[in-house]
This record gives sequence, structure tokens and C-alpha cells, in this order.
Amino acid sequence: MPESPSFHMTPDEFRRYGYAVVDWVADYYQRVETFPVLSPVQPGEIRAALPPDPPQQGEPFDAILADVDRLIMPGITHWQSPNFFAYFPANTSGPSILGELLSAGLGVQGMLWATSPACTELETHVLDWLVDMLALPARFRSDGPGGGVIQDSASSASLCALLAARERATGYQSNERGCDGRLVAYTSPQAHSSIAKAMGVAGLGRGNLRLVETDETQAMRPDDLARQIAADRQAGLVPCFVSATVGTTSSNALDPLPEIGRICRQEGLWLHVDGAMSGTAALCPEFRYIHDGLELADSYCFNPHKWMFTNFDCDCFYVADKAALIRTLSILPEYLRNQATESGAVIDYRDWHIPLGRRFRALKLWFVIRHYGVEGLQHHVRRHVELAQRFADWVRASDRFELAAPAPLNLVCFRHVGGDDLNRRLLDRLNQSGHLYLTHTTLDGRYALRLCVGQAQTEERHVAQAWAHIQETAALVEQEPDQ
Amino acid sequence: MPESPSFHMTPDEFRRYGYAVVDWVADYYQRVETFPVLSPVQPGEIRAALPPDPPQQGEPFDAILADVDRLIMPGITHWQSPNFFAYFPANTSGPSILGELLSAGLGVQGMLWATSPACTELETHVLDWLVDMLALPARFRSDGPGGGVIQDSASSASLCALLAARERATGYQSNERGCDGRLVAYTSPQAHSSIAKAMGVAGLGRGNLRLVETDETQAMRPDDLARQIAADRQAGLVPCFVSATVGTTSSNALDPLPEIGRICRQEGLWLHVDGAMSGTAALCPEFRYIHDGLELADSYCFNPHKWMFTNFDCDCFYVADKAALIRTLSILPEYLRNQATESGAVIDYRDWHIPLGRRFRALKLWFVIRHYGVEGLQHHVRRHVELAQRFADWVRASDRFELAAPAPLNLVCFRHVGGDDLNRRLLDRLNQSGHLYLTHTTLDGRYALRLCVGQAQTEERHVAQAWAHIQETAALVEQEPDQ
Repeated sequence: MPESPSFHMTPDEFRRYGYAVVDWVADYYQRVETFPVLSPVQPGEIRAALPPDPPQQGEPFDAILADVDRLIMPGITHWQSPNFFAYFPANTSGPSILGELLSAGLGVQGMLWATSPACTELETHVLDWLVDMLALPARFRSDGPGGGVIQDSASSASLCALLAARERATGYQSNERGCDGRLVAYTSPQAHSSIAKAMGVAGLGRGNLRLVETDETQAMRPDDLARQIAADRQAGLVPCFVSATVGTTSSNALDPLPEIGRICRQEGLWLHVDGAMSGTAALCPEFRYIHDGLELADSYCFNPHKWMFTNFDCDCFYVADKAALIRTLSILPEYLRNQATESGAVIDYRDWHIPLGRRFRALKLWFVIRHYGVEGLQHHVRRHVELAQRFADWVRASDRFELAAPAPLNLVCFRHVGGDDLNRRLLDRLNQSGHLYLTHTTLDGRYALRLCVGQAQTEERHVAQAWAHIQETAALVEQEPDQ
Repeated sequence: MPESPSFHMTPDEFRRYGYAVVDWVADYYQRVETFPVLSPVQPGEIRAALPPDPPQQGEPFDAILADVDRLIMPGITHWQSPNFFAYFPANTSGPSILGELLSAGLGVQGMLWATSPACTELETHVLDWLVDMLALPARFRSDGPGGGVIQDSASSASLCALLAARERATGYQSNERGCDGRLVAYTSPQAHSSIAKAMGVAGLGRGNLRLVETDETQAMRPDDLARQIAADRQAGLVPCFVSATVGTTSSNALDPLPEIGRICRQEGLWLHVDGAMSGTAALCPEFRYIHDGLELADSYCFNPHKWMFTNFDCDCFYVADKAALIRTLSILPEYLRNQATESGAVIDYRDWHIPLGRRFRALKLWFVIRHYGVEGLQHHVRRHVELAQRFADWVRASDRFELAAPAPLNLVCFRHVGGDDLNRRLLDRLNQSGHLYLTHTTLDGRYALRLCVGQAQTEERHVAQAWAHIQETAALVEQEPDQ
């Protein structure tokens, strides 16, 4: 029962329960390997254990925290387990968690510069730092026409890029008059599903997204891009946007930015580059080649919430021409007018994305960068790539397994040589074991397993154990009859 | 310097620094009234104090935390101050902050049911609880064709509602083929700016948003709505969507849902109802009249992150027909396929909003509801309304001030009788004092001040002090020459 007659938690209670939650989290990281990585519960099982009605009276905090263990934990898939190799990671770290705590405690809403100047200015500053840290093109720095903003996800960033491209291509008329079904955009079949989703959302239509052919490395073929743009112009359509990917979700394929960028410049198309996970690799000089040609892009995003120890949500989205983005998304009702905005001397980030309100997310990013330093972040990125490369070597050396795609960084796509059905059964069996969690994709029409090394606590032993489990389980699955 | 050779914060360090941040937050709430509510810094002042380059080596956590006080706090506008009466509130509470901490610590990404079943099932469960708690129409419960989801903001919720409306009106063809500029939507000039923004984003065009006339209470006039729909049909256009507001941002006007809903039913238009702040009032039976007619709506949202002690972001978005929403936003690439999704037995919330990834936001909402109980939440809502009504009474009784609009709940719009310029100067002077923070709007073309009571710690004395400051400052401003 809350002790205060006001029902609020008093500062002393907050201190006591806050320590308890901090301890809970610290303990969690110490025992995270004891849980099955993929939650084994059946659909409906978690809900069935929850009381059907909300409580009329408040309950003691200790009881709530105990219910986290009792009711919630069985239904958790452990993204922070060192044995989580699925999807792209969503890693986090102590300084990030504490930055999120501080942000929640301050409870500021940074929609306008005026509604908390530090929320806006720290964000601009840290995003400029990241331009330097990743050696991104200077055009994305905020001291010129460009600039960066934190979005919730690469999906939202891609949508905003597409919207700005749509407006630039139509003289800012689509926003006012609506779309006319003639705008077309281009990406590869390996691009993230959010690009097709954004086409639907933005009113261009998913059917107006052209899938450009890929080469044997799953990368976009610039010659096919040029061909399709020409064909669309011939047909009276209006090409406006290309989304290239550095590190596709399926297989980490790297689209050739210099050639794609040249075509976009020649043709006047907006080039967006999605580096959601792999962009972080550019912290290390030896991996910066992935961004060759990025100086030709109009926008770019990467997600510190994937591979830079900053908890979800934190996508860094950069544009070379912030005026285009702001003109696309700005609307200024009377109740948001203020002197700072009207002076033109400040950034109001509400005009840089879909939602109006925003949390102080720069705080956790600042905490992470300061805690690790550039050196600490580089250390972990190098280590993850090294572990993934070691795994790729084991696959290459195996008789039973083969690589399903090049593995330039920390993602390895591989398959058992026994065919799709066997690989499907192998994956199910591995994930049901609770020892590790992998996901799959299809490449060239064939099933492939994906192992992505990116969790903060993943060490060599975890990758070695994963490979041992994969081999042992494959030996079992090979004995089963085909299904 | 991080003590661990891995650069990571060890569990022991996390415990130590975690306690320090918990203490910092507890102390903050004890000293929050000592800060000027509106940050007094000038544009660029916060950035100028930050080091131009990111650190190469990691830094001690104590130094980072000390810099929060030194570099960040001067640039904070204190949304959690009991003297914050601006905009709509974004209040929070101890249990919410600790729920956010736990969510950050778990670090799960709930895009699919399978990626953490508890993240999805607790969300569905708590959103069903809220249907009961607010006595919302049963059609929004998840056990029928409807259901609820947490979005980041009402802006995003409105966009999703508009998208589903767009698709329903075009037989799910706009998503595929793009918009054709013929769809029109309706709202009042008092609706939130996010509706116009959504029209641009969704490709319908801001110019195709009709502003329906309002009555003397600033509420939408159903007769004008019917008239405009008929005129648009006459002109060969396709009316598809109405956004009504219960509690407009400017003045808390309540659009008449029963009449608007009847028109939408007759005409086959999607009715979205935006209850961003005021929806929370329906926790109390005596305020539930604001939702009369909501059973005619296709979608509804309200924000626990405004007035229900749950820190931003937490908007609850409900639809009566989840199939329409999912069909609009779903896309299923191979790398997200899984047995649970294909069984059809689970909800994958990624198909209910724009972003793919999502945090475990239901946790903080669950913590808040369990900590306060329905009773505790009702207590505070009643108290806030009572304090605002007391303030409205003082305004009514004053010779110098008048109400600028009806004040049904916790927002009071008022003005000095001395004209727009005087009111503008009065507001600036009040906000520069640091004692309180108010914002303004225009109603019927005249400037009005807004005082919204919704911060967790606001008590009678704060509202009384605010009124005293307003009167004293007005007396000073009255003496100044016109500018």
C-alpha cells in the first residue's frame, strides 16, 4: 500500500524501491544466462495468469516487483542474453539504462527548443559528435544546411526521408494537394520491409516501389537501377527516391553507394541510406569503407539501439538539407508559438519527425559515449566482428555447413547442406533448446540461418558454444526422417 | 574510468551508480520548486558549454552525473514542477519511472509476440483494463474484433487512424496504388495540429482537410459537418474520415460525439476521437459524459503520459476493427516469419503502428495502475479538476480577468480585460519570473492565457500562488505604456 495519503510514492519510498529495481536489474544481468533465450510460453499463457480486473486499491510495490518475476519473466525472450544471435541485436548497457532512468525522472518533453533547451541542444551536439566518430560526410553536421535528429526507429527515419523526397519532387505540393499516383521509388528486394511500408503510408503506393535487381552478393545493381529509372520516365512516371542499404537485414549486403549516388545526382533523386545496424561499424577506421559514397546521399540513418549499447529507442537520422525535411513536416498552431521559435535561432525537433512530443533520448546516448569513450566502443565493435568472422571460418571449414552469403561484418548467414526442410527443423530444435536464439531468412530462394553477434555480453565462449550446439543438433536432425 | 577491462559497467558498478541516479531523481523531486520553471538560457548557451569533441577514453560515471547538474540542468524546463501549468501536462510518478527503468534493464524489443510474449500480452491486458477503468465502449476490447495498442503519441495514433480510414474507403487500394487526391477528411479548427500533419504525411494533402465550423463553446458543429460532406460528395470527392476531439488543446472544447457519430455512420466515414489529455477524466464516473457517443467511433486515443502519471511516451490507441488497421500496416518479410505469427493466435503489434521495433511500455502503465489503484488515480483527477475549477471561480469573480472559454475540466482559458498586447506582456513577464509557466492560445481571434492543472505534485497552494502572481504581475503590466 502506498504509505502517503496522497497515493504518490514519497521520495523516501522512491529511494527504497528504486534501489530494489536497480538491484533487480543488476541481478538480472548476472543470471541472464540461466533463462531459456526464447520464451517457451504458449499464446495466451501470460494473460491467463493476470487478474482479470484492475485493482481498486493500490498495491505494495514489493508485490508488484515480485509479480515481475512470477508473471512476466516466463514470457520474456532475453534480448540481452549473450546467447541471443537473432534478428539484428538491440543491445544496451549500464550507462544507457541509467541515462533512460534519468530521462524518465526529469520527465521533460522536448517538442520545442523552449520546452527544454538542453534536450534539443544536447541532441544536436551528440549527433554532431557521431558525425565525427563515424567519419560521416560533413554535410550531415548541424553547422551547415544539414543536421541530425533522434528518431524512434529506422522505419520512421526512412518514412521521413521518403516524405521529404516526395515533397522535393513535387515542389512541396503533395503535402498540400495529396499524391497523384505517379511518383516512384527504388530499393532492392533485400531492403528492409519498412521501405515498402513507408510507400503505403506516404500515399505513393507500395506498387510504385521498384525492386532493383541484386548481384551475387545480394547488393543492388546500379545498372538495373538506371534502367528502371529510364523506363519509368519513359512511361511518364516521376522517379523521386532511392533507398540503399549498408548492411541489409537478411544478409548484411552492402549496396554500392558511389554508383547509386552518381545515378541519384544525375537524375535528381533523393538518396536515403539505411545503415541501421552496420553503420555503427564505422566507429572503426577499418570498416569505414561501408560508407564510401555516402557524401552523395541526401539522408542517412543508423541505430545506436542496435549495436551501440544504447537501449531502444534511438535511431540517428541525418539529412543534408534540413530545410526540406522541416518544410515537409512543420505545422505551427498558435498554442506552440514562442519567441525562440520565431527568432529562427533554434531547432524545434517536433518538425523533424511524425510525433509532436519527444523524450530526452540524447541523455542516454551521451552517457554511453562518455562512459565507453570512442576507444571502448571501437573495442566492442571489433570484438563482435572478430567473433562473427571466427564463426564464419568454422562454417567454411565444415563439411556439413556452408556460408549462404558473404559475411563482411558481424552477421553470418549459413546453411546445412541438407536442404531447406532440414535447416528449418534444425532452427526450431536449436531455438527450443533455450541455449541460443537464431533466426532465418531466404537467399536466392533458399532457406538460410542467421547468426548475428552484437549483444554487449557476448564473448568467445558463447559463440563457440553456439557452434557446438549447432553441430550437435544437426547430427540429431540428420537422423530424423524428412517431414 | 570504467573499472572493467571490458569497458562495460560491472553489475557492482551498476548497483552503485544506479543508487546514485535513484538518489539524484529522489532529490530532484524534493528541490524541483527551487528551479525557474521555464529555463532562462539563451539559444546556443547549453551547446557552448559542451566539449566540442567526443571523449576518446571513457570517463568516470560520477563525472558524467556531475555534468548533468553543471551543464544540463540550466537548460531544463521543469515539466514536473508543481508550478508547470503550460500546454497539456506530461506528468509522471515514482512507479512509472521505475517501470521505465525495469523496461530499459530488460531491454526486450517487442515487435512480434514471439520476441517477448509478455511484452505483447501485458499490453493487451492492461489496455483492456483501461477500457473498463474509463468505461469505454466494449467494442474497443481485444476479445472481439477490436483492440488497443500503445503508440508513442496521439499524433501517431491519429495518423494510423487516418491511414486505416483511407484504406477502408478505397478498398485497400491506396496502399498499393497510391492516393489520387480525391479523399477528404474533416475536423474542427480547434483540433490538434497533428491532424493536418497526418493529412500531408498520408498523401491525402493538407488542402483536403475541411475545417468544420465551431459553436460558441469552440465545439464542432454537426450541421456544418453534414453540409460539408454533402458539398464534397456533390463535387465528386470521397469523404473518408472525421477527427473529433474531447478536450481540444486550445481550450478543452468537447465535440458532440453522438451527433458527429450518427453522421459518420450514415455516411460511412471513419470516426476517430482524440481524447489525448481529457480522456483520463473518464476514470471518474462524474466525468464520463465526455465520452457519450464514443460507441459510434471507429478509433479512439488518450494519453496516460499526459494526465495519468505515466511518463512519456504512452498513448493508448483503440480501434473497433483491428483487421482494418493490421491490413493497412502489415508487411511480412521472410526474416520476421515465425510459427506463432502464422498460427494466427497472437498479436504482433508491429502491424499496429509505423515503427517496427517497440519497447516494453506496458510495464510502466501496469506499475502505475497497480501502485495507485483505480481509487488513487480517481483521487488525483478529481483533485486537479477541483483546483482548476477553483481558479476559474477566482477569474470569474475578478474585475480584471475573464474566462475566454468554458472550463469543463482541468484547463482554464482566461484573459485580462486589457487587450491582446497586455495579455502578451503579462504572459512573458510571468514566465520570465520563473515562478510558474503558462502558455497561450487564440480563441475567436483574441489572445488567451491557458492554465492547465495536471502535474502530479500540484497542490492548492501552487494554484493559489499562481493566481497571486498573475494578479500582482498584471498590476505592474497595467502601469506600463503600450508597446
